[in-house]
Amino acid sequence: MTVKTQSPDFRREIPDGDSHERDVCSTCGFVHYVNPKIVTGSIVRHDGRIMLCRRAIEPRVGFWTLPAGFMEVGETTEQAAMREAQEEANAAIVIDRLLAVYTIPRIAQVQIMYLAHLREPVFSPGPESLEVMMVGWDEIPWDDIAFPSVTWALEQYRSVEGVEDFAPFSNPVP
Amino acid sequence: MTVKTQSPDFRREIPDGDSHERDVCSTCGFVHYVNPKIVTGSIVRHDGRIMLCRRAIEPRVGFWTLPAGFMEVGETTEQAAMREAQEEANAAIVIDRLLAVYTIPRIAQVQIMYLAHLREPVFSPGPESLEVMMVGWDEIPWDDIAFPSVTWALEQYRSVEGVEDFAPFSNPVP
Repeated sequence: MTVKTQSPDFRREIPDGDSHERDVCSTCGFVHYVNPKIVTGSIVRHDGRIMLCRRAIEPRVGFWTLPAGFMEVGETTEQAAMREAQEEANAAIVIDRLLAVYTIPRIAQVQIMYLAHLREPVFSPGPESLEVMMVGWDEIPWDDIAFPSVTWALEQYRSVEGVEDFAPFSNPVP
Repeated sequence: MTVKTQSPDFRREIPDGDSHERDVCSTCGFVHYVNPKIVTGSIVRHDGRIMLCRRAIEPRVGFWTLPAGFMEVGETTEQAAMREAQEEANAAIVIDRLLAVYTIPRIAQVQIMYLAHLREPVFSPGPESLEVMMVGWDEIPWDDIAFPSVTWALEQYRSVEGVEDFAPFSNPVP
């Protein structure tokens, strides 16, 4: 085994034909592009209720979230949202339409949120969830929501519930 | 300068707490996550016409495309689409709404396409474009479009032109 104890000798420069500064290896010229990451998730509905999952993992252990997570290579955004509901809530879901695309620039994350429904009313906590529940609007634990974008998605969805055609949402204007 | 001639000793394994196989460095345990990349772009409108840019760079030099490109860290998806129109067509645009989210799994790319309009009727080719033009529907060079998703966006937009509220599109079903 080759034991390497030194990290690459990156310097900041604008590569040929590029317009942004990047980390470029002084030795071999490798350009280390850093790209925003994609999270996909969904508001999963059944009988007028919405699925929430209580997080078993950091960050925000114990707080409530929508089934969502990092998109993998080789899947579509819709497949990624379906996989996350399967992994976090053992739930088979059907994607209905796009609700919102949010950007969280501070953590370079783009969140693509769908409306979906349960294929059948069967669900249980996956390894990343402590609990899974289906709640009505007056049962949402607003003070114990894990992330601001979960609140955005819930409030924006509530504003168009029952409407078929609407433009998808972006980050709410503060 | 440290000259390193060997690449990391990656092996495929499922890291603790993960559900997917990743490249993990045998030496230091570094997990090399590979994530889908985000392209943002827009259909830029003015006076019933649409902006097309003829590509000056590979791939597909000489073919027509919409102003679009890779999203950078630190910007929102909307800012990224505005920047691309500025870079490729020296055009200041206003984002109107989301048109479509496409996934191209083969190249692990998610394309987020907006409807936009010119802030003022001023544009010219940037360094990545040979030509920029505003065209009517009957002037679109359909046989010389650079990428399938450009055709998808144009055809899907045509199907809802003049409609205010519609659900955004995804990849067309073949």
